Amino acid sequence: MSDGRTSGAGASRPRVLILGGGFGGIGAARKLKDADVDVVLVDAHDYHTFQPLLYQVATDLLPESTVGHPLRDLFHDQPNARVHTATVTGIDVDARTVSFAGMEPLAYDYLVVALGARVEFFGVEGAAEHAFPLYTLADALRLRRHVLERWEAADRDPSVVDDGALNVVVVGGGPTGVESAGAIAELYRGLFVEDYPDVPQERARVVLVEAGAEIFSMFKTKLRRYATKELEKFGVEVRVGEVVQSVTATAVTLASGETIPAHTLVWGAGLHGNPLAESLGVELQRGGRVPTRPDLSVEGRPEVFAVGDVAWIASGKQPPLPQLGGVALQSGEQAGENIARLVEGKETVPFGYFDKGTMATIGRFSAVMQGPHGITMTGKKASLAWGAVHLALLSTGEDRAKAVVNWTWAGFTHERPARISVRTEETSEREVAT
Amino acid sequence: MSDGRTSGAGASRPRVLILGGGFGGIGAARKLKDADVDVVLVDAHDYHTFQPLLYQVATDLLPESTVGHPLRDLFHDQPNARVHTATVTGIDVDARTVSFAGMEPLAYDYLVVALGARVEFFGVEGAAEHAFPLYTLADALRLRRHVLERWEAADRDPSVVDDGALNVVVVGGGPTGVESAGAIAELYRGLFVEDYPDVPQERARVVLVEAGAEIFSMFKTKLRRYATKELEKFGVEVRVGEVVQSVTATAVTLASGETIPAHTLVWGAGLHGNPLAESLGVELQRGGRVPTRPDLSVEGRPEVFAVGDVAWIASGKQPPLPQLGGVALQSGEQAGENIARLVEGKETVPFGYFDKGTMATIGRFSAVMQGPHGITMTGKKASLAWGAVHLALLSTGEDRAKAVVNWTWAGFTHERPARISVRTEETSEREVAT
Repeated sequence: MSDGRTSGAGASRPRVLILGGGFGGIGAARKLKDADVDVVLVDAHDYHTFQPLLYQVATDLLPESTVGHPLRDLFHDQPNARVHTATVTGIDVDARTVSFAGMEPLAYDYLVVALGARVEFFGVEGAAEHAFPLYTLADALRLRRHVLERWEAADRDPSVVDDGALNVVVVGGGPTGVESAGAIAELYRGLFVEDYPDVPQERARVVLVEAGAEIFSMFKTKLRRYATKELEKFGVEVRVGEVVQSVTATAVTLASGETIPAHTLVWGAGLHGNPLAESLGVELQRGGRVPTRPDLSVEGRPEVFAVGDVAWIASGKQPPLPQLGGVALQSGEQAGENIARLVEGKETVPFGYFDKGTMATIGRFSAVMQGPHGITMTGKKASLAWGAVHLALLSTGEDRAKAVVNWTWAGFTHERPARISVRTEETSEREVAT
Repeated sequence: MSDGRTSGAGASRPRVLILGGGFGGIGAARKLKDADVDVVLVDAHDYHTFQPLLYQVATDLLPESTVGHPLRDLFHDQPNARVHTATVTGIDVDARTVSFAGMEPLAYDYLVVALGARVEFFGVEGAAEHAFPLYTLADALRLRRHVLERWEAADRDPSVVDDGALNVVVVGGGPTGVESAGAIAELYRGLFVEDYPDVPQERARVVLVEAGAEIFSMFKTKLRRYATKELEKFGVEVRVGEVVQSVTATAVTLASGETIPAHTLVWGAGLHGNPLAESLGVELQRGGRVPTRPDLSVEGRPEVFAVGDVAWIASGKQPPLPQLGGVALQSGEQAGENIARLVEGKETVPFGYFDKGTMATIGRFSAVMQGPHGITMTGKKASLAWGAVHLALLSTGEDRAKAVVNWTWAGFTHERPARISVRTEETSEREVAT
C-alpha cells in the first residue's frame, strides 16, 4: 500500500486521518491533542464554518469572516496536527488509504469520517437549479448577493416588486427555515425600509412552507405556537401541511396547486450524507447516513469512525440523533477519545449525547429555548441566552470579540455589517495603453 | 430631453447627479445635505470602498466588510439624497442627461463626475491578463484568494515553492506598492510560518520593482531610506531603476533581462481616468484626467464638476494634485459646496487642497509619516498615528469598532481575521433524489 507523503510530523507514530473540518472533525482532532499520534485533518476548504449562523451571513447580520474561521488557526497550538486543503476522491478501507484531487494519497491507521452532508431536494422539480440551500458559507454568500441584487433591481425599477422579484419562499419549518424566514422578514421590514425608501417593501412577501402539521416539531407545543405567532408578527406567511412541488427562477408552485411569484426559494429542508460514505462498505441508513456502533466505529472496521451529519447515531429502537452542530461536536470528540484509548491499548467507550438544549432565534429579541431538563424560554430572555451560547461556541476570542461588536451594533443600532455584494470574478476594468 | 424617473424626493428642486460613490462622490453628496436640492448618487456597486486599506484586505489584515461599506448606510440621515446601483453608459452634457445600464436615463441640473480611474498597464506585455491591481475591493479579494491558493498548493506539494509559486513581484514604489510589499512579506515571514509549517517560506521571494531612483518619491529622503531599510528587514528585495517588461502566469521579466519565476504580480503603478471622461467634451490631460477650473467645474460647463482620481486639479504651472483619498474627499466636498452656492445664487469659490500629511505603513509598528509643516515620523509612533488617522477616516462608528478589534488582534495576537477563501460561485453540492 502506498504510504503517500508523510504527515510532516514524524511518520513513526500512528496516523489519524480526519476527513472534514466541521464540528465533528474539529472535535475529534482536538481530543487527540495529547495523544501519541499524527493527526492529519483534510477539508475541501481552508476554513471551518460555524453552520448555525449561516443564515445570519445570508441576511447580513454577520460578515462571513466571523462565521468562516481559518482552519489552520485552530491548530497553531497542536504540534501533532497538520491541516491540508484538498478534496477527497476516494476511500479504500481495505488498503487503509484515502485519495485526493491534486494531493498524493494518504495512508491511515485510524480514520474519522466527518464529511457532512449534501442538500437533498427530494426530486422537487427545478430545485437543484433554482433553490438556495444554506449548508455552506458559499451558499450563504450566494443567497445574500441574490437578495441584494433583487432589491437593487427593484430600486432601479419598482414595478418588478409586483412580479415577485422580492418575494421569498422558505422551505422547511426546522431551525434553518424558521431562522432564515424570520431574519429575512426582519431585514425586509426593518433595515431595507431605510435602505430603499422608494421600494414598496410592504408588497414583498416572505412565505414559510412546512410539510408537517406545525413548525419547530422538535420543540414543545408552547414554543411552536410562540414561534408561529412571532413569525406572523414579522410579516411571514406560515403555511403548514404544505409542500413545494416545483420551482422556476421566478415562481414556486405548491402541491395544493397555488403558484407564488418569487425569485428566491430558500431550501431549509433535507440532507443526504456525503456520497463518499458509500465507499465504507457498509449498508447505509436512510438519508445516506453511515450506521455506527455504540463507540461510533463502523461495523467490521474498528479503526474507522463516522461522526456528525454523515453518521447515523441511534441506540436500539430510538430514532437517530438529529443532524445538529452539538451532536457533531460531541460525536467527534467521542471518536477522538476512543482513538486515543485504542492507541493506549484501552477499550473504547460508548457515545452518549448530552443535550445542552435547543435554541432558535426568530428575530431580534425573539427566540425559543428548550433546555435539558424541560426548561423552556421565549422572547428576549431566550434571545440573550441564544446569543450567549453561540458566542461561547465561536472558535476564538477574536471571533467572539468581532461577533460581540457585530451583534451589539446590529441589535442596538439596527446597522448591519456586511450588506454589500462584491463580485470577486469582477476585477479592475483595465486600460491597456499601446 | 427625457427627464427619466424622478429621484423619488420631489422633482421640483434642482437635481444634483453624482456619478461615483468613492471619497469624491461621498464628499460632494454630504456637503449638499442641507441644500435645497435632490441629490442622486449612482455607483456601479452598492458599497463605498475605503481604498487606502485595500492592501490590508488583500493581505488578510482586515475583512472586506470593514473596507467596503454599504453606500445606503451613509445616507440614512440625509433625506434629500437617493442612492442607485447602476453602471453609467453615457454622459450627454448638451442634453444634461446620463444614461445607465438597466435604469432609465437621469436628467441633471448639476453633475459631479467622481468616476475614478482604471488601472493603466502602459502596454506591459501580459499585464492585462496576469497582473493583480489593487484599485477595487474585488481586486483585493481576488489577490487574497490567489495568494492563499498558491500556499495551499505548496502545502499539498512543497516542491512548487522552487518553481516560484509563492514568489510575488510588486510593481510601483508608491504607497500602494510599498504597503502591499511590506504586508505580503510580513504575512509570509510571520503568520504563514505557523499556518504552513511544512512549507519552506524562506525560499519564497517578495520583490518590489520601482522605475525611479528611489521608492516613496513623495517622501523626504530620510523617510525613503527608512522605508527601504524596513522593507529589506521584512525580507523584501527592493529593485529601483528597474521596470517590468512582460509577465506570464508563472514569470515576470524585467527590462534588464532578468526573469523572476513568480505566480503573482501585484500592480501598484499607474492609473488612467475613467474613459467616460471623454464624453465631457473637453480635451483630457495626461492619464485621461479631466482638466478643472479653479472651482473644479469643467471648462465651458459651469454645472459640471470633476473631482477625485478622474480630475486633473492643478494651479498654474504646478504639477497636478496626486490621486489620493484626501484629495478626492476634499475636492468632492468643494464641488458640493460650490453647487450649494450656485443654487443659492452665490459665486463659486476656488478649491484649495489642505495637505493633512501623507502616511504609509510598511509593517506592524513600521510606518512613515510626513506632516503638513515638514513634520516627519517613523516607526511605531508613525504606525500608531497612521492607525489613528485611518480609523478616524472610516465611515461609521461600527466600522471603527470593528477595525479596532481587528487591528488590535492582528497587531497584538498576530491573528488575522479574514484568512479564508470562499468561492461564491461554488455552492452546496447537491443530491437530487429521483
